Amino acid sequence: MLDLRSDTVTKPGEEMREAASNADVGDDVYGEDPAVNELEARAADAVGMDAALYVPSGTMGNQIAARVHTDRGQEALVEHESHVYRYELGGFAQHSQLQVRTYDGGENGCPTPEQVREGYVETELHRPGTGLLCVENTHNVKGGVAVPGDELAAAADAAHDLGVPVHVDGARVFNAATALDADPANLLAPADSVMFCLSKGLGAPVGSMLAGSTEFVERARRIRKLLGGGMRQAGMIAAPGLLALENRERLDEDHANASRLAGALDDLPGLAVPDPETNIVLADTTGADLTAAEFLERCEDEGVLASEFGEHTARFCTHLDVSEGDVPDVVAAVERAL
Amino acid sequence: MLDLRSDTVTKPGEEMREAASNADVGDDVYGEDPAVNELEARAADAVGMDAALYVPSGTMGNQIAARVHTDRGQEALVEHESHVYRYELGGFAQHSQLQVRTYDGGENGCPTPEQVREGYVETELHRPGTGLLCVENTHNVKGGVAVPGDELAAAADAAHDLGVPVHVDGARVFNAATALDADPANLLAPADSVMFCLSKGLGAPVGSMLAGSTEFVERARRIRKLLGGGMRQAGMIAAPGLLALENRERLDEDHANASRLAGALDDLPGLAVPDPETNIVLADTTGADLTAAEFLERCEDEGVLASEFGEHTARFCTHLDVSEGDVPDVVAAVERAL
Amino acid sequence: MLDLRSDTVTKPGEEMREAASNADVGDDVYGEDPAVNELEARAADAVGMDAALYVPSGTMGNQIAARVHTDRGQEALVEHESHVYRYELGGFAQHSQLQVRTYDGGENGCPTPEQVREGYVETELHRPGTGLLCVENTHNVKGGVAVPGDELAAAADAAHDLGVPVHVDGARVFNAATALDADPANLLAPADSVMFCLSKGLGAPVGSMLAGSTEFVERARRIRKLLGGGMRQAGMIAAPGLLALENRERLDEDHANASRLAGALDDLPGLAVPDPETNIVLADTTGADLTAAEFLERCEDEGVLASEFGEHTARFCTHLDVSEGDVPDVVAAVERAL
Amino acid sequence: MLDLRSDTVTKPGEEMREAASNADVGDDVYGEDPAVNELEARAADAVGMDAALYVPSGTMGNQIAARVHTDRGQEALVEHESHVYRYELGGFAQHSQLQVRTYDGGENGCPTPEQVREGYVETELHRPGTGLLCVENTHNVKGGVAVPGDELAAAADAAHDLGVPVHVDGARVFNAATALDADPANLLAPADSVMFCLSKGLGAPVGSMLAGSTEFVERARRIRKLLGGGMRQAGMIAAPGLLALENRERLDEDHANASRLAGALDDLPGLAVPDPETNIVLADTTGADLTAAEFLERCEDEGVLASEFGEHTARFCTHLDVSEGDVPDVVAAVERAL
Repeated sequence: MLDLRSDTVTKPGEEMREAASNADVGDDVYGEDPAVNELEARAADAVGMDAALYVPSGTMGNQIAARVHTDRGQEALVEHESHVYRYELGGFAQHSQLQVRTYDGGENGCPTPEQVREGYVETELHRPGTGLLCVENTHNVKGGVAVPGDELAAAADAAHDLGVPVHVDGARVFNAATALDADPANLLAPADSVMFCLSKGLGAPVGSMLAGSTEFVERARRIRKLLGGGMRQAGMIAAPGLLALENRERLDEDHANASRLAGALDDLPGLAVPDPETNIVLADTTGADLTAAEFLERCEDEGVLASEFGEHTARFCTHLDVSEGDVPDVVAAVERAL
Repeated sequence: MLDLRSDTVTKPGEEMREAASNADVGDDVYGEDPAVNELEARAADAVGMDAALYVPSGTMGNQIAARVHTDRGQEALVEHESHVYRYELGGFAQHSQLQVRTYDGGENGCPTPEQVREGYVETELHRPGTGLLCVENTHNVKGGVAVPGDELAAAADAAHDLGVPVHVDGARVFNAATALDADPANLLAPADSVMFCLSKGLGAPVGSMLAGSTEFVERARRIRKLLGGGMRQAGMIAAPGLLALENRERLDEDHANASRLAGALDDLPGLAVPDPETNIVLADTTGADLTAAEFLERCEDEGVLASEFGEHTARFCTHLDVSEGDVPDVVAAVERAL
Repeated sequence: MLDLRSDTVTKPGEEMREAASNADVGDDVYGEDPAVNELEARAADAVGMDAALYVPSGTMGNQIAARVHTDRGQEALVEHESHVYRYELGGFAQHSQLQVRTYDGGENGCPTPEQVREGYVETELHRPGTGLLCVENTHNVKGGVAVPGDELAAAADAAHDLGVPVHVDGARVFNAATALDADPANLLAPADSVMFCLSKGLGAPVGSMLAGSTEFVERARRIRKLLGGGMRQAGMIAAPGLLALENRERLDEDHANASRLAGALDDLPGLAVPDPETNIVLADTTGADLTAAEFLERCEDEGVLASEFGEHTARFCTHLDVSEGDVPDVVAAVERAL
Repeated sequence: MLDLRSDTVTKPGEEMREAASNADVGDDVYGEDPAVNELEARAADAVGMDAALYVPSGTMGNQIAARVHTDRGQEALVEHESHVYRYELGGFAQHSQLQVRTYDGGENGCPTPEQVREGYVETELHRPGTGLLCVENTHNVKGGVAVPGDELAAAADAAHDLGVPVHVDGARVFNAATALDADPANLLAPADSVMFCLSKGLGAPVGSMLAGSTEFVERARRIRKLLGGGMRQAGMIAAPGLLALENRERLDEDHANASRLAGALDDLPGLAVPDPETNIVLADTTGADLTAAEFLERCEDEGVLASEFGEHTARFCTHLDVSEGDVPDVVAAVERAL
């Protein structure tokens, strides 16, 4: 079975397993886990921030960021198809008493400076003020599209001019940097905080990083505790995370495979598949007169797993466990499925 | 000074003052205030619901409704220019842990059944389910536009088919019924609850009513207590509220005055003023090359108060304290202002 | 029927009704109600604070204070039999995300400085810091007992030394000042905020005041809006409230009546009734082999209402509507009841 | 350095590291991690519940339980020295809008049935109803004391009679079962849910289990997602967790070591050290005229770490990484320290 449902399904390889096995660990709640400490230092460095915090999931990282940046009763500006708005169980309201206000980030999910200014609400008697702008990069639902640095900077500048901090949901931000051929630290320089996942394209078994200023991360550590994210000998999973950081260098392979896959699928009668920017391939099944659910069922029968992303949209993710050689097999299976 | 900023500015007349003075009162927290009890019974009757609750403000009525209808961690579907979303300080998140999802209700603020179905989110692992649909009638920001009964019913049917209750923010619902020449009870039959204000067009000094099923109101009474809305000898303000209920019959006068005013203002060079459906007149000042703020300042100098409703939009509300004879005076003042 | 259940049951007299009838009103949400503005100024003055806010209930006043003084996720130190802890529906958790920590205030409900220091929790990784100390004066459940100024000051000093603000639930704080023969402003000087009720011993139909610094009240006004406590022509009830303020001068009559009543009841076989400090008389019915519920039912049959305050404790409140001449009638009725 | 600060500091041994290295993993958010699934099944079995959920920390397990068992705005009955009240950042208020009410569980932390009934609050207009009883077993702050099955059952029966569910914070519940020579499933039969830690005495690197009915765990899974506790290839840490479950059998060694240690420390002049029931040794330093902080600093200089547990109380925990042979070394070091 070839599993392209998500880049979260990668299984740790020999090297990561060995790293786990040999990890130098300690009690991270006391701040004494060497592997975690090293991971936090190197993660901060990778995104050009002062400090970073290891968290069990990307959702926790995003929710902590919202809580630390805001006061209760403010508004958060979020993209209308973004993960924080759609797939985190309304956590902004539940953990941080925030009202969300959505913007339509168009093709790549980044708001224009005008959209930031229009979405901004001043604090007054009847109105919660705006306390946070979130940008997702790459944007998952839009097909792994990367937000270019200048657009992100323009949006962030507009937010900062209004006194609003900026959090980047960068679950796949290294895919973005790779696609943009950008230095991640430069790309993220306009942001006040970023969350990125070790467990997606980077291939670690568990965990995400939340990075920002030293003071931000200090406060984040306390909210992690509140949410129950303080772990003990977390070095067992932080050690593979350290190797995962090195997988940044090979994301271009996933992108190349995604591009190959998209091209070949688009050639199949019945599928419309735009060329992807990163590792997410969205296939429109309308031409095959199939719903995504029907299409996926057939694919599964032929040995390929993908995920439903809309009534007529199926998502294929390339990742560490999908090699260049797997691509033709996926295409052949989909061809049989059709 | 002619005050048309809002229909909330009406001052109680002789009769209402006398009613307050002679009110038969008791301790409403014990349920023993005869005036409040009568008001609640008659208010329920006026909107065709089983029971009603007297609350200090429309905001409290809406917030209680959201809390009673939902479980924490759900979503509420609200109009993107509605009062509950814009002017209640993000209360849905703060009081009820709800994430809001907005729909664009177009001209009159009512969602189509398709919009209800599209906005609906099923409860699943990653997603908060939808727990409430709110419709505002008349819709304030759109210019006091009335939602026709069949549109409201279609939206409510779509919601009910999905198991979602419907709350009507009917701060000015009797203006809607008047404009539509509809029986309020019929108009509201598709709703599970409605809040309406005694202190707007009906002219009472203080208070709003929240109506619904007997069980709904029983639970609402407890949430009112939680929010600090339990008052003691509230009959002093409920008694004028009883008279206010009778003012339903004269709302057509306000509408006629609004229509007269709009027609005359639209004739002034520089203003674009569509004919209003109810008592809210929106004047576009773009043609006069004035911002709303500049325009309003000049109006004030000429003895007329209105309110800012957008960068180039001023709002004039007609109400109990604006007579037919006042209309030409308002127009003359605005003419001088221009 | 003589109603001594609570001092909240007082009905407005001729003068208050006339004041309501003649009130000079405006829209208080715009800050334009002359009667409310005057009431807020005079209330602030009465308690020696910079500013005050009119709220629909004492519960709302206390809840606003907690919210303004604290950050989410802190602790509040509250007395284990206090109103904010027992009778406000867990509002500190619900409105302000506060964990309560109780102290046993002994006879008068005031913590010792040691208790404040012991109850104080420093902010650290695992622990919410303490954000508020609440003291109730007079303390209702303990029988209307007044907290002397020096004890309050000592507790407040201990709190301030730890950086913790102090809110006084002074629903009946003028009863305390009267019993202590203290100037209310002096008595409350150590507090950062105080809520007092116009609708209890002072006899107004509706409302309470929340007083503190100018900045505190400005922030409180916004939270009042959030809770739905913004009212329109509230002068109709603020005007009687102004008269109620003058009733401070006559609270000693209620206290004298309470003392007379307690003495006479204590002489009845079966009742144990300590001499009250203010207007709350607690009668222990154990000696009569009656539960409070049974006792109260018999009293009601004889024309006297009181309230249940424990399994064998009944509470009689004296107030504006209980005259010196009523006291013997109450005693006679209770005697028949026994 | 001999580290007895906590049983959380144990480092995974060869076998656990190998288990991590060889774990059969999958994406646990899709429910596809074989190691996690096996761990959840065996954990449920170990405590005699229908189902269990793997969570990153004990705090998360307790917080999820509170959320699932209650409605917002209720009360939770918790012990006044318990972990959920003291060391979870007021999470009951923050995550579940619960007001806490404390009971004094005396020697072992278990409430008597009378205390449950006294602490119970009926749902009414002014009062939040009681929605949860929490019992901690073993009780950490009281010195690892075990709650006997009959006491727990009596408390739970009292709660159930009132319609209140019971959650056991069993971070160290297998220590309790061992000390009581009880079958854990019997011991926990009266509870509706239990959380126990793999990362304390059982020696796993990361994680805790939350167990209860199938429906409870299904709802818990969703709240875990909300809190950000959904992990991906969690089998890497679940596999060592499976071995940790087997360490239940050897907890008596920790208890024997604790007893030896306590006896020897108690013989030292200046220390008062009661015989422990489980693995937690509390040493009173008053006799040595040292604060706990001073005492601990000296111990550290001599090569032993323990933790501060009160002004004159130091805590020593025995665990997997403290052998019988280490005990005399600890004692000798402490002797030098004194």
